[in-house]
Amino acid sequence: MRKTYKKRDFPVADIRRYLEPGPTVLVSSQWKDERNIMTMGWHTVMEFSPSMIGCFITGANHSFEMIRKSRECVINIPTDDMIEDIIGIGNCTGAEVDKFQEFKLTPEKAEKVKAPLIKECYANFECKVIDEHLLPKYNFFILEVVKAHVATSPKYPRTVHYRGDATFMISGKNVSYPARFKPQNL
Amino acid sequence: MRKTYKKRDFPVADIRRYLEPGPTVLVSSQWKDERNIMTMGWHTVMEFSPSMIGCFITGANHSFEMIRKSRECVINIPTDDMIEDIIGIGNCTGAEVDKFQEFKLTPEKAEKVKAPLIKECYANFECKVIDEHLLPKYNFFILEVVKAHVATSPKYPRTVHYRGDATFMISGKNVSYPARFKPQNL
Repeated sequence: MRKTYKKRDFPVADIRRYLEPGPTVLVSSQWKDERNIMTMGWHTVMEFSPSMIGCFITGANHSFEMIRKSRECVINIPTDDMIEDIIGIGNCTGAEVDKFQEFKLTPEKAEKVKAPLIKECYANFECKVIDEHLLPKYNFFILEVVKAHVATSPKYPRTVHYRGDATFMISGKNVSYPARFKPQNL
Repeated sequence: MRKTYKKRDFPVADIRRYLEPGPTVLVSSQWKDERNIMTMGWHTVMEFSPSMIGCFITGANHSFEMIRKSRECVINIPTDDMIEDIIGIGNCTGAEVDKFQEFKLTPEKAEKVKAPLIKECYANFECKVIDEHLLPKYNFFILEVVKAHVATSPKYPRTVHYRGDATFMISGKNVSYPARFKPQNL
């Protein structure tokens, strides 16, 4: 059973809280009248402010040209209740199916990009492509997060982290060591 | 109590199994007579073969110039028994202390780079810097993994994943769905 999250605006400089742990994400895109979703595991935070993400997407993905042409996408963070959707979305192509319909996901209007948010996800990061010069050699997009929406609860989502070989790690417990960090290293 | 792992050579094209889930890693480096270790959370797999990793390291880190000048480093994967070392290493500087001594870690000779492996870690990936043109603008290194050493057991390590705010997620259970993947998408 998929969850329903109530969301709030979230500071884009703080999205590392959800991306740095390394979850498998869903990337939604829109180009002209077509929308699509892909599953993605190869991404990294690149800067706090401006809020930047780097990600690898090959031209074999139907989403590649949609993101390249629109210069936009949304990075959505799904939780473990969506694990079958995450797998299914990664194992069919937007060239053949509308994945929102196929997986009964709800597209929501974003604020700063045309690509739709996926309502069922824990968080949605609206992104603009700010540097595409690494595409020919490395298939690597550099994105700026221009707007973030994050669930008000729970504080930490149960995310899924792909290991290859059809296996995912599910995020476990959270532990804090506030006294052990220098303030500038938090 | 820190663990001791027995390791074997591991195919460099398969290291995504350990990096894609997003663990906080320790990066060891060597430049002339100096060695160092840093804690790193901003990294991504970029290719299977050649085995490539992208990672963000700012010039504020003592390791930055050591890696840039030597064009080498080792990415070591620590497990949750090392969480206090991971925090401590991230909260002091190699300009002032020898972190191997300070944290009682054992440097081991690598095979293809001069930077030392950290014996106490679950896995060690020897890396060469193959592209540094993103350093001036993005502090982003592109690395090729030229040799990998991975513990023979357990199959999946208990890794730590930084969330910011002095909080780590510890990797949880592993779930497999082999029947749901197309072979080319594993």
